[in-house]
Amino acid sequence: MVIIMSPEATQQNISEVVEVIKGVGLDAKIMEGAQQKIIGVIGDKTKMASIPVDAMQGVDHSVSISKSYKLASREFHPQSSIINVSGIEIGGDEPIIMAGPCAVESREQLMEAAEIIKAGGAQFLRGGAYKPRTSPYSFQGLEEEGLKYLAEAREKTGLKIVTEVTTVEAIEKVAAYADMLQIGARNMQNFGLLKEVGKCGKPVLLKRGLAATLDEWLNAAEYIMNEGNPNVVFCERGIRTYETYTRNTLDMSAVAAIKHLSHLPIIVDPSHGTGKWRMVKPMALAAIAAGADGLMMEVHPNPAKALSDGSQSLTPEHYRDVMSGIQKLSKFLKDEKLLSFVED
Amino acid sequence: MVIIMSPEATQQNISEVVEVIKGVGLDAKIMEGAQQKIIGVIGDKTKMASIPVDAMQGVDHSVSISKSYKLASREFHPQSSIINVSGIEIGGDEPIIMAGPCAVESREQLMEAAEIIKAGGAQFLRGGAYKPRTSPYSFQGLEEEGLKYLAEAREKTGLKIVTEVTTVEAIEKVAAYADMLQIGARNMQNFGLLKEVGKCGKPVLLKRGLAATLDEWLNAAEYIMNEGNPNVVFCERGIRTYETYTRNTLDMSAVAAIKHLSHLPIIVDPSHGTGKWRMVKPMALAAIAAGADGLMMEVHPNPAKALSDGSQSLTPEHYRDVMSGIQKLSKFLKDEKLLSFVED
Amino acid sequence: MVIIMSPEATQQNISEVVEVIKGVGLDAKIMEGAQQKIIGVIGDKTKMASIPVDAMQGVDHSVSISKSYKLASREFHPQSSIINVSGIEIGGDEPIIMAGPCAVESREQLMEAAEIIKAGGAQFLRGGAYKPRTSPYSFQGLEEEGLKYLAEAREKTGLKIVTEVTTVEAIEKVAAYADMLQIGARNMQNFGLLKEVGKCGKPVLLKRGLAATLDEWLNAAEYIMNEGNPNVVFCERGIRTYETYTRNTLDMSAVAAIKHLSHLPIIVDPSHGTGKWRMVKPMALAAIAAGADGLMMEVHPNPAKALSDGSQSLTPEHYRDVMSGIQKLSKFLKDEKLLSFVED
Amino acid sequence: MVIIMSPEATQQNISEVVEVIKGVGLDAKIMEGAQQKIIGVIGDKTKMASIPVDAMQGVDHSVSISKSYKLASREFHPQSSIINVSGIEIGGDEPIIMAGPCAVESREQLMEAAEIIKAGGAQFLRGGAYKPRTSPYSFQGLEEEGLKYLAEAREKTGLKIVTEVTTVEAIEKVAAYADMLQIGARNMQNFGLLKEVGKCGKPVLLKRGLAATLDEWLNAAEYIMNEGNPNVVFCERGIRTYETYTRNTLDMSAVAAIKHLSHLPIIVDPSHGTGKWRMVKPMALAAIAAGADGLMMEVHPNPAKALSDGSQSLTPEHYRDVMSGIQKLSKFLKDEKLLSFVED
Repeated sequence: MVIIMSPEATQQNISEVVEVIKGVGLDAKIMEGAQQKIIGVIGDKTKMASIPVDAMQGVDHSVSISKSYKLASREFHPQSSIINVSGIEIGGDEPIIMAGPCAVESREQLMEAAEIIKAGGAQFLRGGAYKPRTSPYSFQGLEEEGLKYLAEAREKTGLKIVTEVTTVEAIEKVAAYADMLQIGARNMQNFGLLKEVGKCGKPVLLKRGLAATLDEWLNAAEYIMNEGNPNVVFCERGIRTYETYTRNTLDMSAVAAIKHLSHLPIIVDPSHGTGKWRMVKPMALAAIAAGADGLMMEVHPNPAKALSDGSQSLTPEHYRDVMSGIQKLSKFLKDEKLLSFVED
Repeated sequence: MVIIMSPEATQQNISEVVEVIKGVGLDAKIMEGAQQKIIGVIGDKTKMASIPVDAMQGVDHSVSISKSYKLASREFHPQSSIINVSGIEIGGDEPIIMAGPCAVESREQLMEAAEIIKAGGAQFLRGGAYKPRTSPYSFQGLEEEGLKYLAEAREKTGLKIVTEVTTVEAIEKVAAYADMLQIGARNMQNFGLLKEVGKCGKPVLLKRGLAATLDEWLNAAEYIMNEGNPNVVFCERGIRTYETYTRNTLDMSAVAAIKHLSHLPIIVDPSHGTGKWRMVKPMALAAIAAGADGLMMEVHPNPAKALSDGSQSLTPEHYRDVMSGIQKLSKFLKDEKLLSFVED
Repeated sequence: MVIIMSPEATQQNISEVVEVIKGVGLDAKIMEGAQQKIIGVIGDKTKMASIPVDAMQGVDHSVSISKSYKLASREFHPQSSIINVSGIEIGGDEPIIMAGPCAVESREQLMEAAEIIKAGGAQFLRGGAYKPRTSPYSFQGLEEEGLKYLAEAREKTGLKIVTEVTTVEAIEKVAAYADMLQIGARNMQNFGLLKEVGKCGKPVLLKRGLAATLDEWLNAAEYIMNEGNPNVVFCERGIRTYETYTRNTLDMSAVAAIKHLSHLPIIVDPSHGTGKWRMVKPMALAAIAAGADGLMMEVHPNPAKALSDGSQSLTPEHYRDVMSGIQKLSKFLKDEKLLSFVED
Repeated sequence: MVIIMSPEATQQNISEVVEVIKGVGLDAKIMEGAQQKIIGVIGDKTKMASIPVDAMQGVDHSVSISKSYKLASREFHPQSSIINVSGIEIGGDEPIIMAGPCAVESREQLMEAAEIIKAGGAQFLRGGAYKPRTSPYSFQGLEEEGLKYLAEAREKTGLKIVTEVTTVEAIEKVAAYADMLQIGARNMQNFGLLKEVGKCGKPVLLKRGLAATLDEWLNAAEYIMNEGNPNVVFCERGIRTYETYTRNTLDMSAVAAIKHLSHLPIIVDPSHGTGKWRMVKPMALAAIAAGADGLMMEVHPNPAKALSDGSQSLTPEHYRDVMSGIQKLSKFLKDEKLLSFVED
């Protein structure tokens, strides 16, 4: 942390700030110029977390220069992590594809979808049994019934199951049926939920919050890991901006940023990221080229009859086309070794 | 809802869309121009919520033109609501002030703060016992111990208590001590929590989400009200934008917007809204002049020793100065009848 | 500036950075901790502007801690400036009101508007002769003809004229007719235009860019002042955010921020800031309560026939009502001395 | 356009709105439901541009449903356009690469850069002679001297020249030396400049504004095309969001969106889009995979000595590595026909 004193700060002000810093066991260095005095603080940032230096006399403002997360950081764990989910490795050589309908709507719809997903080559079936919806009057999901259909689809196809958990109470139930728990964008800072999925131990797919910074997202992973669960996979799904043509603005650069800042895998959801099925293929290919460890995509046997998010769902034909492209591109990138990250 | 067909849409496409609309019991009107065909849908929007028209053949896009909330809307309840919290009326003639430290830190700190708050003329004591924090390593609150201190401060001063509840499990405990439950910005779309505070029946202070639209905020209130709890008060606390000088961008116009769209009261939190104690007074006065029903402000006996948000906390002296200004301004606005909202 | 070295930076890397800093005549101080090394740079920031330290070996990132503007800053000029525009003082005791139609549409419309504006008590007539419009097919303004009508309206009413200049070529012409030149939001970083209005010497109303930070805005003023023209007045007109209910998000806190950072006056435009005439009155009152030095508002003799921005224009009746409120509120605030800014 | 009447609108209100619509030669259709009345307007949107229906009695709000640009739209010109710049085809089979330093700093620097750029395989040399800078005290470019060096570098290497023009006065000079004129982000809505580069006829590289919507960007192209210059190429360079880790948020989905909405080519600038050289390679590959027609990248012989934007510039080694990746990927995508855009 660097503390910038205001021009009219007195020596007394500076001494008081330094005293507070030393009081929590940190070291302070003063730099004085003709017009400016700044105080550098070196050491464990967490010790400073509870000191409101900005409120002290003579302080203009302070600037944070170190990270507030540790377990999720690449400094702490320089080697990229591979997360094993029921035998499927996320973060390894192959991109992992999670596909399926936005919501589980009926047994028939899900079984039909599962067969299509399996045939196209994805490893995971996605589908919401608990749906967080803006309006209380929108379809809220089939809940446990939906979980049972997901488990049945796994039996039939061998696909692994990833599905969202929205409340602490539902964790046990969802964990009993799913291979991987999804934390949705609206719950990325539902810290109670993060701690409990941390305790539960199941692998977690952590979607980025609607307007979450990378730092907040990494800290959300830290909440889960700090409870003893190291199996976290990030999912970029677009952020909220002023642009209204797309449902969200897919932050493709988050792939490269997370790869640099963290050892955890990251996948991309071009369906929610754009909200338009036409944009799924180009963004899926782009994500793979950017180095993403996989994709999450919405596919519906009949998008025009979907109970939610139909306009961003791929038809079975488009899904097959996208999968074929991803597989070819991914093989090409691996063969050409195009994705080795550049480090000094 | 208005459905805009793409230029190459066929008559067959149009017929299919119309059929789907009629299938859910709504009426469709077709408007055809030389280059453009649009279909208007009239009736209860909730019936359309589950139909993905955007995914149908020939549809370019659709535009929603009605609201997805009802109980919270002024159309449904044209008269402004007054919410009674343990005898204090929010939304009535007097602005209601909620003040206190960001977090309950110790018995001494809270009692000292409560005496200051009471003396300055506020009606509510605020203070977090459960703190949602970005990093798992930051101070997380005293939990039930903090609630007990809040109740003790009420005993001594007569101030009402408003405090945040962050998990479903904690609702019962918080409700046993507090007069009003606060839903924080990070939980504004924690729908499980919203439903449970709806069932619990205690008055709710609903903070706006970090990047929530007005529509999403009103729908969050609808979740609470739909469970039978009509006692919701909005709190504007700044939204996330690209500007970094302030902690958030205080959306003052939300006061006028909510007054127009809803019958529920709205208060403003200039402390979180700006993140700088210097800006609290001008923004507090502005909020009252804009027609806000009250304010929430952070006050700390000694901001420079606060365990969280010290840089945005008022000192006791500044608090007294702000309160004096608010009281004079509020009386003036009432005497001059300057705040009658303009309706055609 | 503070330079944060990456954990694996060598002593050699640090020496090279220090050498570059000293090479431009600045002083560098090294702070070393167990895991972190940072280098503080003290002195005139402008000397560092051209050194890309972030690209040097071993540098993780750098953080700017001082301002890049000087003439516009309160440090440079601690006393608040009063800008005199043809005898009207902006930044003095009285709030200055600029009102009128968005665009000059015809001689009749403008004369009618001018009489209404004058009668209501404003000091300036606004009206665009050159209109920057998103689409090339929208009404672009009457150009010089419009300027002549503005000058004629000044003759008749004594109102001062403020009108937008959008190109360097038009400056001379606009300056010949207007008392004050307006730089619109879309041109806030049209540096060629800023320099030329700086040279021209006429007082300038500098609107905030659509997504401009406070720092960029202050630097835009610096461009004008650096050419020898100290007569700059800021105008907050809303910034672009994700919220679509309002045309822009009016950043009311910019009033308090600019008052703290700069000695120049600031006014607020609630018409563009909200895009809705119903919200103009509450936001106008709020701006005055926040300490704004004036307001710019759209008023049209017949908003429903306006050629641009009719939906945000006040009718003559509403204008009179708003003016009456502003005058009373302003007198009250002055009498009660409620607006003295809090400085330590 | 669809006009939504407020619930209390009278028949008289509706008639007046319909009359105004018919008055400009358009057709209006009324749809009435139990609680809602809406009026559909069919026909040329430009006729409605000047009617402020939102300000009419009884109107709640209106929603625009058609585009305000025409020449730039794919409806108008269904076939993708290829823009020929001095013999180089942008929008054809090969991705076109524009590379070079942010600013022309000296003859030596530019000649060295040009040789590197040429050897790596790019077709265009970029380099700013006129630099728009936030602070008036930052390096502003070598101006005409810089243009001469650019022309000299073209002589030596055969590279085409693209460079920014920031003022109307400089157009003639820049056009005399450059093959393609760049309109920078800060000038995307400098309509005077757009019209003049439209008249000048030289091919234009139109960067997206800092916070420009796709619609505004397309309309900016329309300004240029409407003056008779059809040779416009879009350049996505990141938009402004709340995220501060990257300099901007690169909106990769804009590639797919522009391809759908317009017939004009689009390239991507990952250097400005991210602000970090480490992220250039993954984002460059992603852009090509997304279907971009080319790239603009900053390359500097010695980034650590660059006078601007050094931290986002590639070294010669990294540039060669990125170019090699792009060429292989591009060939692969063409051979596999992976980029055919999905249309119904």
